[in-house]
Amino acid sequence: MTNSKWKISFSELDSILKKLQVLLLDEISNNKKIIDELKTTYNIDFNDNLVQKITNIIKKTVEDIKKDLNFFYESDPAASSIEEIYWSYPGFFALLIYRISHELANQKIKIIPRYLSEYAHSKTGIDINPNAIIGCPCFIDHGTGIVIGETAILGNNVKIYQGVTLGAKSLSRGNLLKGVKRHPTIGNNVTIYANATILGGDTIIGDNSTIGANVFLTSSVSNNSLIVHNENNIDLTKK
Amino acid sequence: MTNSKWKISFSELDSILKKLQVLLLDEISNNKKIIDELKTTYNIDFNDNLVQKITNIIKKTVEDIKKDLNFFYESDPAASSIEEIYWSYPGFFALLIYRISHELANQKIKIIPRYLSEYAHSKTGIDINPNAIIGCPCFIDHGTGIVIGETAILGNNVKIYQGVTLGAKSLSRGNLLKGVKRHPTIGNNVTIYANATILGGDTIIGDNSTIGANVFLTSSVSNNSLIVHNENNIDLTKK
Amino acid sequence: MTNSKWKISFSELDSILKKLQVLLLDEISNNKKIIDELKTTYNIDFNDNLVQKITNIIKKTVEDIKKDLNFFYESDPAASSIEEIYWSYPGFFALLIYRISHELANQKIKIIPRYLSEYAHSKTGIDINPNAIIGCPCFIDHGTGIVIGETAILGNNVKIYQGVTLGAKSLSRGNLLKGVKRHPTIGNNVTIYANATILGGDTIIGDNSTIGANVFLTSSVSNNSLIVHNENNIDLTKK
Repeated sequence: MTNSKWKISFSELDSILKKLQVLLLDEISNNKKIIDELKTTYNIDFNDNLVQKITNIIKKTVEDIKKDLNFFYESDPAASSIEEIYWSYPGFFALLIYRISHELANQKIKIIPRYLSEYAHSKTGIDINPNAIIGCPCFIDHGTGIVIGETAILGNNVKIYQGVTLGAKSLSRGNLLKGVKRHPTIGNNVTIYANATILGGDTIIGDNSTIGANVFLTSSVSNNSLIVHNENNIDLTKK
Repeated sequence: MTNSKWKISFSELDSILKKLQVLLLDEISNNKKIIDELKTTYNIDFNDNLVQKITNIIKKTVEDIKKDLNFFYESDPAASSIEEIYWSYPGFFALLIYRISHELANQKIKIIPRYLSEYAHSKTGIDINPNAIIGCPCFIDHGTGIVIGETAILGNNVKIYQGVTLGAKSLSRGNLLKGVKRHPTIGNNVTIYANATILGGDTIIGDNSTIGANVFLTSSVSNNSLIVHNENNIDLTKK
Repeated sequence: MTNSKWKISFSELDSILKKLQVLLLDEISNNKKIIDELKTTYNIDFNDNLVQKITNIIKKTVEDIKKDLNFFYESDPAASSIEEIYWSYPGFFALLIYRISHELANQKIKIIPRYLSEYAHSKTGIDINPNAIIGCPCFIDHGTGIVIGETAILGNNVKIYQGVTLGAKSLSRGNLLKGVKRHPTIGNNVTIYANATILGGDTIIGDNSTIGANVFLTSSVSNNSLIVHNENNIDLTKK
């Protein structure tokens, strides 16, 4: 398959996603101890119910996934083809698993969404809670160390680089905070560069804003903001 | 198993830990090249001696592991049950492997503790040297990018988030520093937020202190300190 | 094998690298779906051509890999032996895979180099683009979260710690930037500590320089520079 062929038609994606589905199920099935546990605990007939559910969910998410793929290709000068993104980009893999696990979580399926997200986390270093809400398309580059918390909300066309945390401001009250919105809201067309940390359930990043690398932010910024690290806080000396 | 059942009794943990032991050994055994290497090099009869050793160590560490599990559940509002933590939290997995590999290291077993810790590192992005000393309970959330160096010492009830480094101040003298304390000491009830970097063998973080996200620290702080990043060092402009 | 034996003679490395080759091929072959895809798409007869190519490349890179191994041992006080580095250090594994995938990329082989680098990325959290140019020897410690971009150039004797990004200054123009040098140039004998971020294709770090932890840098510095984070930008209060 050439790149241009991929550009002309996305129709092969459906058959590839079917392969992914098989791959995903293989990956899960291989971990027989967990499957047995889930079967005993939840009476999930893994080979029927869940396969059907995942098939339906993949059908539901396929349009979003196609948009994500295109957005990755447009956003990354290092990508030589869409198939390279599909087969080798951890950010795309983590986002794909998120879109599936988010739908599973919406259907009130327990543990499996988190198991899938931690599977993706272990493969990619990208930790996206299935309950987070991520608009479409989204672009995640490199990705190692990214944390997107349970109650985070992201708009469309958001770009996120490695090491970014969208986290909670304080966890001092621990599990009393279950269900409370603790993670930030990110507008449309926002770019967040490497290792930026944005915390808090009331923190809102306005549309079209850019957050620079290593920035630490715990309060809201309006639309069209550019937040960059002041370079005055480093010392240069001779050895 | 319901969450409440887990709360009432921890007795199932022992059988689950036996399953973990099997899982661990399966994982190692599958890597036949390494096993053969270890057998030839160290005369370890993998199927007898080491199984027995690991069984004994798991028996020894099980009480600590139960306390860790409870501390995770209390500390994380996103955790819906203890079993979710057990099956899917990379921080818990890394800590579990640390507790086992630390005991193996204490028993002067070579390479295997580091092999186990790098196995956990590859699964979780959390790099805990088996010789580090970590009190109980401990809570590690998300965890990707955490580095806890060989001579670090941590008290009880410590909470650590993703990207935290407890490292050496300088490695300019390289392997002349073998055995020297090069990594910090962390007191009891300390919380260290995402991407904080704490360096140096003389650096002591006092009890009950909190280190904010992205803080870079190379000197000691007294008990009850709160160290937070000054937000003045970022520039906000309009695009 | 004792450590001293390894020190006296590196001759065993060749047989170990042959084992690595087998291991690598096993790892790739196991992923039959990808192999089938590659075979259909590129007419690569995986069991002949590629094996021969990888054998030749391993022969070509073996001297560099030996130098890297020695440099790791000299640089890390926590390493008890060269074999410990060989079997368990993710930084060494990522560098080894980089040296192989870089040669494959030089030979204009498509996708496989990136597949290998993302395989190493998923194992180690270290993301080195196969097209980056890395001198020899190089030392990568811990490594989780490291990103070395497509057009980065590194000199000899460079040491890099976890979370370091050698990245692009801006990706606003996306895939119009294909082929343009977007990532920094690092001189000889440079050390870059944890979580430092260095961006831009025109950014040159002079020989013998040291970049401190968490430093954010988007402009060049001359030879023998020491760049450290100013600790004045943190606030210390009592709780």
